[in-house]
Amino acid sequence: MSSQYEEIKQEAYRQNMQLPQLGLVLFTFGNASVADHRLGVFAIKPSGVAYVDLTPEKMVIVDFDGKGVEGNLRPSSDTKTHAVLYKHWPTVGGIVHTHSTYATAWAQSLRDIPIYGTTHADHLTIDIPCAPPMADEKISGNYEYETGFQILNHFEANNLNPEEVEMILVGNHAPFTWGKTGEKAVYNSAVLEYVAKMATLTEQINLKAPRLKDALIKKHFERKHGPDSYYGQS
Amino acid sequence: MSSQYEEIKQEAYRQNMQLPQLGLVLFTFGNASVADHRLGVFAIKPSGVAYVDLTPEKMVIVDFDGKGVEGNLRPSSDTKTHAVLYKHWPTVGGIVHTHSTYATAWAQSLRDIPIYGTTHADHLTIDIPCAPPMADEKISGNYEYETGFQILNHFEANNLNPEEVEMILVGNHAPFTWGKTGEKAVYNSAVLEYVAKMATLTEQINLKAPRLKDALIKKHFERKHGPDSYYGQS
Amino acid sequence: MSSQYEEIKQEAYRQNMQLPQLGLVLFTFGNASVADHRLGVFAIKPSGVAYVDLTPEKMVIVDFDGKGVEGNLRPSSDTKTHAVLYKHWPTVGGIVHTHSTYATAWAQSLRDIPIYGTTHADHLTIDIPCAPPMADEKISGNYEYETGFQILNHFEANNLNPEEVEMILVGNHAPFTWGKTGEKAVYNSAVLEYVAKMATLTEQINLKAPRLKDALIKKHFERKHGPDSYYGQS
Amino acid sequence: MSSQYEEIKQEAYRQNMQLPQLGLVLFTFGNASVADHRLGVFAIKPSGVAYVDLTPEKMVIVDFDGKGVEGNLRPSSDTKTHAVLYKHWPTVGGIVHTHSTYATAWAQSLRDIPIYGTTHADHLTIDIPCAPPMADEKISGNYEYETGFQILNHFEANNLNPEEVEMILVGNHAPFTWGKTGEKAVYNSAVLEYVAKMATLTEQINLKAPRLKDALIKKHFERKHGPDSYYGQS
Repeated sequence: MSSQYEEIKQEAYRQNMQLPQLGLVLFTFGNASVADHRLGVFAIKPSGVAYVDLTPEKMVIVDFDGKGVEGNLRPSSDTKTHAVLYKHWPTVGGIVHTHSTYATAWAQSLRDIPIYGTTHADHLTIDIPCAPPMADEKISGNYEYETGFQILNHFEANNLNPEEVEMILVGNHAPFTWGKTGEKAVYNSAVLEYVAKMATLTEQINLKAPRLKDALIKKHFERKHGPDSYYGQS
Repeated sequence: MSSQYEEIKQEAYRQNMQLPQLGLVLFTFGNASVADHRLGVFAIKPSGVAYVDLTPEKMVIVDFDGKGVEGNLRPSSDTKTHAVLYKHWPTVGGIVHTHSTYATAWAQSLRDIPIYGTTHADHLTIDIPCAPPMADEKISGNYEYETGFQILNHFEANNLNPEEVEMILVGNHAPFTWGKTGEKAVYNSAVLEYVAKMATLTEQINLKAPRLKDALIKKHFERKHGPDSYYGQS
Repeated sequence: MSSQYEEIKQEAYRQNMQLPQLGLVLFTFGNASVADHRLGVFAIKPSGVAYVDLTPEKMVIVDFDGKGVEGNLRPSSDTKTHAVLYKHWPTVGGIVHTHSTYATAWAQSLRDIPIYGTTHADHLTIDIPCAPPMADEKISGNYEYETGFQILNHFEANNLNPEEVEMILVGNHAPFTWGKTGEKAVYNSAVLEYVAKMATLTEQINLKAPRLKDALIKKHFERKHGPDSYYGQS
Repeated sequence: MSSQYEEIKQEAYRQNMQLPQLGLVLFTFGNASVADHRLGVFAIKPSGVAYVDLTPEKMVIVDFDGKGVEGNLRPSSDTKTHAVLYKHWPTVGGIVHTHSTYATAWAQSLRDIPIYGTTHADHLTIDIPCAPPMADEKISGNYEYETGFQILNHFEANNLNPEEVEMILVGNHAPFTWGKTGEKAVYNSAVLEYVAKMATLTEQINLKAPRLKDALIKKHFERKHGPDSYYGQS
């Protein structure tokens, strides 16, 4: 493997292997991809291949229109959704899709996840959005392609910025997360599952738990992400 | 071990050992079997033997009337249920019975598991059926044999096809799953437990969560199982 | 270690070490003991010693009045409860006390665990009993000794047989289990936790879930424990 | 590393590494510190460094005003909260902050955790306190410093003693625990999470579960902590 795609294949492999490690996937219910915007392609998990059988060589290279570029295996069935997002969001370098239990339960519930605490506010300042199921004619058509637009449209309709909100629940289906890198996209999937679990527990403990107040939302987000952030090593 | 049954013994052993690995059984609360329809027999776990003590040689060979054919140990107490299903469903090559926590809780609740999301629809297009408890005189009679008919009758009464719906909850008891192979039957047990957990969470998050709409059910099932399926490697 | 107590020390050690393995204890929140009724003593975990630091030699030998017989360490603070049960129940060879999460939550709820399914009926034919908290003057007196009588009295008042019902929830506190051997007592603690979890889930899924009907209770218990039992190897 | 701070660096490292082992943190969502009151400093985890990359050398030495004393890395973003507590509570030798799921869900619910059982009473005699969110002007100001005073003020207003109550929920945020040593602070974080989980389950099982009665609270706390305590080895 000495192709120009070697780096994203290696990275897509590494990030896919994180998903079962973090307890986010059962069997093959998930996939990660890593893009090279300069070359206009991304590397993604092959469809239906067990994680124990994955190797960097088996990653499939696809362009931003969803067409295969390199690789002998068929890419993930969700490939076109990844392609649409990469094509329209040039700052996104990695995308992850899982059916992790708590996040998926919220998607099945067709509810945004309310911002109940600072763990949530450390990562985004709004409720985690849940896109409504798409119209029937789109489902029966080019489904995975339309799922990409379902996400794009929900962001546009709600004036959301994919650099600030790096996750969404696709209603009735499951979560997608992304980030500047594949590693960040995987990180966001684990954070989403963790926040989704705590929100579920919060409502069980106090049905009338209030949303986090604005001052705390602002403070926690900015100490991690603002111009004067002081979280982590500079 | 050079008998004609060696292959199904090995396979039954392998599939039984998957059950604790997948977190589906405590102690000996479960069993897997693998059939050879040509020879009219199946290999099944011996009764009450701990998983750490299992070997391929300890698997018991039984015919489709539930009579022992080979092996020194007593077969699983659920053997006659397996025998009835193999006898009447010639396409079934493996059967698994567990008391996995979420699926069993639904069986104890006497409710079908509603189809709330695409994870469910990827595997079957209807609610996961729960057969009602059987009549008292059957329970006190040939109980495990009647449990097989309880399953068969529920499928017939509801016009279900065991090649399309590869799982059932036996009311007040626990789940049974099956498939063309033992591996598929084990896979289905893990999927059932996962879907059962997410359905439980979905109802906790939104008591009025809607069932998945028909267009999504159809799309997800067909992309995995239809004539033009595009999931996995062809 | 060549004392006459070597065997029960070894066995008490082995059974105590099973408790963290089975996920039943955090830190030192639990203890197992094994009795020798011929010698009138039992071996029990020393108080407050971490499981990683346990050895067979550290087990403490105590008589059925709760007096130390051999060993340099102070025995478990629950020792007198064990002593009372061994003294009055001559067929009990092992006792386990844990604060396992689901069983303890039921004890804190002051509710018997309803018999909702066959997993429960495989082990006992009635709801798992929860003894009410004891009177204040007994608590401030010889507390652990009285806890033993709290259990004995609840069994007597409800006409229960400790050979048929091998577990109890002590109200507001936590579970005790027992059996002919230490291994059986540990097994019962794990079964109790498993059944307690499934009962919790069952009520979440269906608030009106019915108790198991009598025919199923009788069948499942007798196939494992009746004179014509056919579970396990004879 | 031969500085006078070597001992607390080693100990802070050891205690930080316990947090993922005990399942209390995801990624870097937590931190432990260990103080030397004689020298007026404490050692704390560097900010945003993954647990797998930690070493004793990377621990940062900070004084009780929150000023850096030794170390090349930026200390945890929660450092000033630790500093305030050490400065005002001279008997506290270790502090831990996590976002463990159940304890955080109670903090998000803005509820004290009711004392439902003896596991709770073994560690403290009152409901686990939840401090209300602080005023907006303090949040936008010196936030982590004010969080320390939020804790101190809640203890003072409720007449609580930090040697008797070694844990608090910071409303909308997450728990802090402490103790004479770093090891005790970590132990308290695990106990808090365990008690928080069992309280959640208790309310699910019985919405009207009563608080533990006074005689039991007194007995359990005193057998572990009173002048005549008989738990553990003397």
